Formats: sequence, C-alpha cells, structure tokens
Amino acid sequence: MNKDMLKLGSNRSIIRELFEFSKLKKAELGEDKVYDFSLGNPSVPPAECINESIKDIITNNNDTYSHGYTSAQGDNNVRDAIANDLNKRYNTSYKKENIYMTCGAAASLCITFKALVESSADEILAIAPYFTEYKVFVEGTGATFKVVPADLDTFNINFDELAKVITKNTKAIIVNSPNNPSGVVYTKENLIKLSSFLNEKEKEYNHPIYIICDEPYREIVYEGNVVSHIPSLYDNTIVCYSYSKSLSLPGERIGYILIPDKCFDSKDLYLACLGAGRAYGYVCAPSLFQHVIEKCATYTSDMNEYKKNRDLIYNGLTNIGYTCVQPQGAFYLFMKSLEDDAYKFMERAKQFNIIVVPSDNFGVKGYVRLAYCVSDTTIKNSLPAFKALFDSYKK
Amino acid sequence: MNKDMLKLGSNRSIIRELFEFSKLKKAELGEDKVYDFSLGNPSVPPAECINESIKDIITNNNDTYSHGYTSAQGDNNVRDAIANDLNKRYNTSYKKENIYMTCGAAASLCITFKALVESSADEILAIAPYFTEYKVFVEGTGATFKVVPADLDTFNINFDELAKVITKNTKAIIVNSPNNPSGVVYTKENLIKLSSFLNEKEKEYNHPIYIICDEPYREIVYEGNVVSHIPSLYDNTIVCYSYSKSLSLPGERIGYILIPDKCFDSKDLYLACLGAGRAYGYVCAPSLFQHVIEKCATYTSDMNEYKKNRDLIYNGLTNIGYTCVQPQGAFYLFMKSLEDDAYKFMERAKQFNIIVVPSDNFGVKGYVRLAYCVSDTTIKNSLPAFKALFDSYKK
Repeated sequence: MNKDMLKLGSNRSIIRELFEFSKLKKAELGEDKVYDFSLGNPSVPPAECINESIKDIITNNNDTYSHGYTSAQGDNNVRDAIANDLNKRYNTSYKKENIYMTCGAAASLCITFKALVESSADEILAIAPYFTEYKVFVEGTGATFKVVPADLDTFNINFDELAKVITKNTKAIIVNSPNNPSGVVYTKENLIKLSSFLNEKEKEYNHPIYIICDEPYREIVYEGNVVSHIPSLYDNTIVCYSYSKSLSLPGERIGYILIPDKCFDSKDLYLACLGAGRAYGYVCAPSLFQHVIEKCATYTSDMNEYKKNRDLIYNGLTNIGYTCVQPQGAFYLFMKSLEDDAYKFMERAKQFNIIVVPSDNFGVKGYVRLAYCVSDTTIKNSLPAFKALFDSYKK
Repeated sequence: MNKDMLKLGSNRSIIRELFEFSKLKKAELGEDKVYDFSLGNPSVPPAECINESIKDIITNNNDTYSHGYTSAQGDNNVRDAIANDLNKRYNTSYKKENIYMTCGAAASLCITFKALVESSADEILAIAPYFTEYKVFVEGTGATFKVVPADLDTFNINFDELAKVITKNTKAIIVNSPNNPSGVVYTKENLIKLSSFLNEKEKEYNHPIYIICDEPYREIVYEGNVVSHIPSLYDNTIVCYSYSKSLSLPGERIGYILIPDKCFDSKDLYLACLGAGRAYGYVCAPSLFQHVIEKCATYTSDMNEYKKNRDLIYNGLTNIGYTCVQPQGAFYLFMKSLEDDAYKFMERAKQFNIIVVPSDNFGVKGYVRLAYCVSDTTIKNSLPAFKALFDSYKK
C-alpha cells in the first residue's frame, strides 16, 4: 500500500489525536473534569434557521429535491443565494457561475490545490502560524509545501521572510484571516502590501500567483476588526469558504469555492476545480445542507458568545501571568508555552486535565493553541487548573 | 493550472452532461415530454425511517451531536450499527474497527485507490462493462487503469480476457455486482472462480491482489438472484458501499469502506485509508446522516417499485423489437444500439426526446444504458417514442 498514506493515517493530526484522548479522559473522569481546548468544534448552537429549515425542507419538498443528486457544481438556487449574500456584504457582483459548492473548507482547499498543481516542482506557500492540515492537503497533490516564517510581533505577514521563500515555482499563497491558530485578523494595510508584492512577483515571473483565502472564520471577529474581502484587493484570489464555523455545522461538510471573474483564466480554473472534485470523488456537496444554506446564508450563530469566552479566557490567563496574543477573531487563543518545548508543556498540562495543542505543527515553536469554543463553565473551571499548571513551573 | 483536471472538468462525465441537457430540455418542453433515462437518481422515496430520524435527531439531541465533527473514521455507534447489520445479513463478525464512514461510494473508491496505489506502474482493473468514473478515480491517484473486455454472452467475468490483462503490477480488481450498467448479478460460481484465479496469481506474483467491491446496488436484486458477500469467498476483499441507492439518498453522500480482518495487512490498510481520506480533505462523513444511518441501517427503499419498472421497460422494449440484457439487479437496462455507433444512436434518440447513455464510456461498444429509476408514467409514455425511434431505422 501507499506508505505516505499509511503514515498520514497512523500519525493522526495532533488535534484529532488530542480529541480522541480527551474523549477517553472524559469517559474516565467525567465531562466537567477535563478542560479540553483541542478542537475547533463550535460551542455556540446554530442559528434557529438551521433546524427549522431542515424540517421545512424535508416536510415541504419531494425527496428527490431534498436528498437527490444536485449538479456537480451545486444547486443553482443555492449558488444564487450565496452570490447574493456575498454581493450584499462586499458590494461585489458575483453570480452563481463563480461559485462551486463543496464538502467544507478542507474539500475546497484540496480541490483548489489539485486544480492548480501541475508537478512536484510547484510550490504552495503558507504563512506561519498556519492550520496544520495545509501541509497534508498540498502534499496530497504532490506539490511542494513551503512556509513563510511568522512575524512573532504582529502575527501579520512578514514580507522579508516572504521575499526569501517565494520563487518562480510559487503557484499560490494561502491566506487565513482571522487566523487559526493565532486569532489575529490581518490588517488591510498588510493585505494591500501583499497585493503589491505579488503583483510585482507576477510580473517578474511572468505567471499568475494566486492568493487562496481560507476564511471559515470570516464572520467571527471582535471589536470592529474588519476582515477585508481579499478579491477586492487582489485580482487572482480564490476564496475557500465553509459554513462549519459561522453556522456551527462542522460535521455537515458544507462550503464553497469562489472564483471571481477577475481571476486569471477564471473560467478554466472553475472547470479545473470541477475536474479535481471529480477526481477526488466529490460527486456533489450534501444536498439537504445545500438547501439549508440557501435559506440560511445570511445568518450566523450568536457571535457574542465567542466574544464573552474570548474575554473570559484572555483576561483569566493573562491575570494568572500567561503571555497571550489577544484574539481579534476566530475562537483560538495563542499562548506562550512556559517552557521552550511546547510538546512538553502540552504533556504537563495534560496532568492538570488541560488539553491544548502545541504550536510546532502550526509552524511556530514555543506556543500552544487553545480553542475556546467551549462552555463558559469549562473556561471558568479551567482557570484554577491553569493557575496550578503555572505555579508548577515556579517550583 | 493542471491540464488533466481542466480536461476532466471540461469533458464532463457523459452522464452528468446528459443530466444537464435533460434539465434544459424539460424546462423547454415540460417535465412529462422528456424521457430521461440518463441518471441513476433513485425514483423510489427513502423509507419513512429517514425523514423521521432526521426530525428525531435534531429535536432530541444537542446540536454538537447532530451537526458537530465526528471522529475521522465515523461515530462509534454508527459503525457499530452497520457492523451489526452486516453480521445479521452475512453471518459475519465485523466490528466497528472494520468500518470507515465516507461521503458515499465515489469517496469510498477514491480513498481506497489512493490508499493502495504507490506508483504509476500500479494497475487497477475493471471488468467491462464498468461504471465510467472508475477510470477517473483510478487515474486521479496516478495509477494505471486497465479494462478486462466484456463477456457479451453472460456479462459475467471473462477469465480468458482477465488472464491476458492481469500482470504482476495488478494491485486490485474492481467488482461491481449488481452491475452498473448491465444490470447483471455475477453468479456465485463466477465469483468462486475469480477467487481461485486471484489466489493463484497472488502466489505467482507473491503479493496480495485486492478485490474492491463497489456494491451500492447490493439490495436492489430481483427474482431470487443472490448477491454474494465477496469477503466470504475471497480474503483480500475491500467493500466500498453507499446508501445512495438502497436508501435513496444519493445527494447526501453517505457510505463506508469495510476492511475485514482477514484482509492482508488489514489494520495498516485501514490506517492508509484514513490517511488517504485526510489527504483528499474528507474530514468526516456528514454527521447528521451518519446518525440517520445508525437508525436506518437495516431499512431499504421499496424495491418492488424497481421490479415493476424493470418489467415494464424490459417487456415494453423487447416487444417493440429491441434486444436487451434482462436486468437481475440494480435499476439499469443495457440495450443494443440500433446502429454500430452508440453515440449516433443516442443523438437519434434525443430527437425523440429520449435520453440514454451510450455504452462506449462503459467499455463496451454498441449498447446504451437506460436508468429506469423513473416514474412508471415516464416509462409508459416513453414506449411510443421508443417505437417511433425503432421505426425510424426501418426507413
């Protein structure tokens, strides 16, 4: 069999591994005795629109509509609804032809990479810290995955580092803002600078360099931080979106790829995405949830809950003495490890029934990620454990 | 971008293309004036269990259960329910550890191929006539796709041809019974012969050769034809299953991969499938429909409807004078084209508002496939059009 796949299946994503560990631990100690900050599983329930729409759709339509195949690119009305929603949000003029429905952000990214990559020389760049699975998705297509080291001061894009990493083989750069794991929202200035930088590189290398926006956290943003619509700043932008986080539907695998007309070769790129989806066995995005999105595209879960959690955990941990990046969006807190080796810190935290993800797999050393999409009770109850963990380093 | 993917996206599956053509034609002429036999979209509604379970699950559980991430391999209770159902049907002793939940048969197949294939020299075989997308799925992994020519008398496996096609590079052979497009159920004798043949080849080549069963039509079978459980006949068997057809849920993308313990290297193979699913961006199978399957795994749609359709169309067409393979299972009829070139026959049929799929893409020349998972009214109304089409060849 394929040894790379065996390795990928055996060395599970550290996040998934901690998720499994936590399930066992909770079964042993009880749900409320384990402070699991490992997984980005939204804690805020979906808007009422979701379950109401499900009932409405299966009650008032025939089953072929509700559960039958849609076109590979997705149902027309669904894609219309999404285009309309985007146009209202961003003052754009997208049409259904710009949208390809997918089984969530992971599928969107894998399909986009597969559509773009021609050979193993092709490079796709991520900016550290970055979501661990990008490497898996890019290498799954046979391409080369390269990392732009982090700017540990601002957690925005470090252009000196980017200039060192980019080459004529660079096909695309992934931009993930609000960022998983740092919780930082890239500033508009930073993104405009990226746009200029890439425009120059496109001229120098004489081929397009795509920005691939992975933006499942687009709607989760605090205190007037603004998530720029990158296609409005840079023509060759492909957006990979998922409703997992904004509508609290991570298990349902529903999202889309947006390929604006301004994108170089946009029509062919759309077709290549359709081809890649076909080669990967994505026949169509789940039909019931396509129809749900048609009805709920304009909704989000109650984002105030995440804001409350953010304040609770950020203030709680900094008061104890931890150093944390203040989250501007998403539901992740990036916290400095209390020792150089974040894995060792993770292991120590486990002894206090605290589950956090070491930053090494995000392309940065010496931090841990806390997914604070948990109940406020979990956060409150975890603080004494965090204090004890902190104190254990004083001894 | 990737030229192969562009080609795959541009030259859509002929079935999907006809599906799109039919939608346009129906919009022009009216639903009842187009006799569309292109797509295997189940016409029989799901068992009541499906929509009842959906309502039950979303009403009586928290949303994290209903819509949240499951483990990558699927929810434990769901996999238990499926193992139990299989054990009752086939007198086996599968456990949840043998089952990996997927987004339908296409995903099951793509993931299995990706898990097995190590290099472009690796060969995966299909027996003609075969489901068109196998070629796309196999070549998507970089492997070589090879076809065992059809036995046009029995539409079972032609061992003389298989002996010519198999080589030391053969990793696996796909077995699809009841067969799409022929509607034939492979006999137990034929499958036992395949088992012996492959056992000898495994010894000769000194490596396992897997049978990959693609069996979404397992439950759709007529008049006492029996679909053998191939893992009981041949150890190195991997089953790729989907509930698309048996439960009439093709748009929901829900199925599984079964890797029995007897399978060579079964534990590693399971992990390699998990790895392949990860590399293709399949985070987990859709969660709500996983839970639905837990409740409905023992059910099927009303198969009598397909039987009635089968009789109606087979008798109707043979009475007109067409030569058809009598379907023993699935909901496809394989009919001889009235001219050598099945594409030309398809085009002529379109003039009579009849939509059928030429057999060339199924690896056989001179036939068309009719998916009779349509209303009986469509079949009845289509017969005069089929008669006119038949008569047009007499002129």
